[in-house]
Amino acid sequence: MPYINIKITREGATKEQKAQLIAGATRLLVDVLGKNPATTVVVIDEVDTDNWGVAGEQITERRKQGK
Amino acid sequence: MPYINIKITREGATKEQKAQLIAGATRLLVDVLGKNPATTVVVIDEVDTDNWGVAGEQITERRKQGK
Amino acid sequence: MPYINIKITREGATKEQKAQLIAGATRLLVDVLGKNPATTVVVIDEVDTDNWGVAGEQITERRKQGK
Amino acid sequence: MPYINIKITREGATKEQKAQLIAGATRLLVDVLGKNPATTVVVIDEVDTDNWGVAGEQITERRKQGK
Amino acid sequence: MPYINIKITREGATKEQKAQLIAGATRLLVDVLGKNPATTVVVIDEVDTDNWGVAGEQITERRKQGK
Amino acid sequence: MPYINIKITREGATKEQKAQLIAGATRLLVDVLGKNPATTVVVIDEVDTDNWGVAGEQITERRKQGK
Repeated sequence: MPYINIKITREGATKEQKAQLIAGATRLLVDVLGKNPATTVVVIDEVDTDNWGVAGEQITERRKQGK
Repeated sequence: MPYINIKITREGATKEQKAQLIAGATRLLVDVLGKNPATTVVVIDEVDTDNWGVAGEQITERRKQGK
Repeated sequence: MPYINIKITREGATKEQKAQLIAGATRLLVDVLGKNPATTVVVIDEVDTDNWGVAGEQITERRKQGK
Repeated sequence: MPYINIKITREGATKEQKAQLIAGATRLLVDVLGKNPATTVVVIDEVDTDNWGVAGEQITERRKQGK
Repeated sequence: MPYINIKITREGATKEQKAQLIAGATRLLVDVLGKNPATTVVVIDEVDTDNWGVAGEQITERRKQGK
Repeated sequence: MPYINIKITREGATKEQKAQLIAGATRLLVDVLGKNPATTVVVIDEVDTDNWGVAGEQITERRKQGK
């Protein structure tokens, strides 16, 4: 029954990469806690770089500075 | 003051259906807990089927298999 | 597959009331969108009144003022 | 290490306003709790007015009524 | 910069198991998307079985029925 | 109508500090976006240091190492 939410910046993750995140997160919960994969839910949120900040700065700006 | 977040896959929910979800979730909190509807907030997130997984599989793939 | 998160202040909701919230939210998604109840997940978060604010004020203080 | 999530309706917030939300929320955690800004994360979600409800009504409808 | 939130029922996950979830989820984001582990955040929420529902039923009740 | 969720580790934030977070976050949304404070909601989640990870490590362990 676990629920896993993965938030990443929207910077071109492919459908295949998302499939890997879903499979890997589900396996993690099965391996570590013995959870039932059939009811394990993974939701990926892709967030615009204008809408994500670290250290008080937009990721958009940090990318321009090579961070 | 309750806050309700409903996450569904983005598969064509209409404006009218979303209005029903908002009205119904608000009524539920009023009926069960006597909450004040005026400050009850409902937020619906629609998530791409590539970004939602169950049983380790993307919903996009599960839909193709008729699941 | 819907996921519903209900956040309320921790002010004595009973186990039976929580069961009603879970049943009611699940039914709502079935009725409005035809979702499969078997994979509908509801998570209730109870939040201390010191940790919830409206109008810039802690609920703890608003309760003292009869709001 | 704090994580701050700000949800607003999608009604034209500019890149500069989002930068101000990110800077301001980060400063708040530094000022009040002495948190390290370098690991403070802010994520802004913009939600369609059809998908946000208050008092059981869609914001889209409330806006039409001048609320 | 990814943020991963893992919600599980509160049923005795140990400190060591939580450490494994944190390490494993971080590694997943590094392996699949090349994310920087230094700014990858994982938050685990443990939720009472009275507060989690599947199929319209509290987990507390489902556990009694051997589900 | 904004909704702000602040997640911090549970390390002794006082009621007064939480009141400052609530007031400050509300003011930020009023100042930057002209939002109505009366319907601005702030929820603070305090998370055990065993349940929060950065760089693949539990905060509990990082604190022992003086990080």
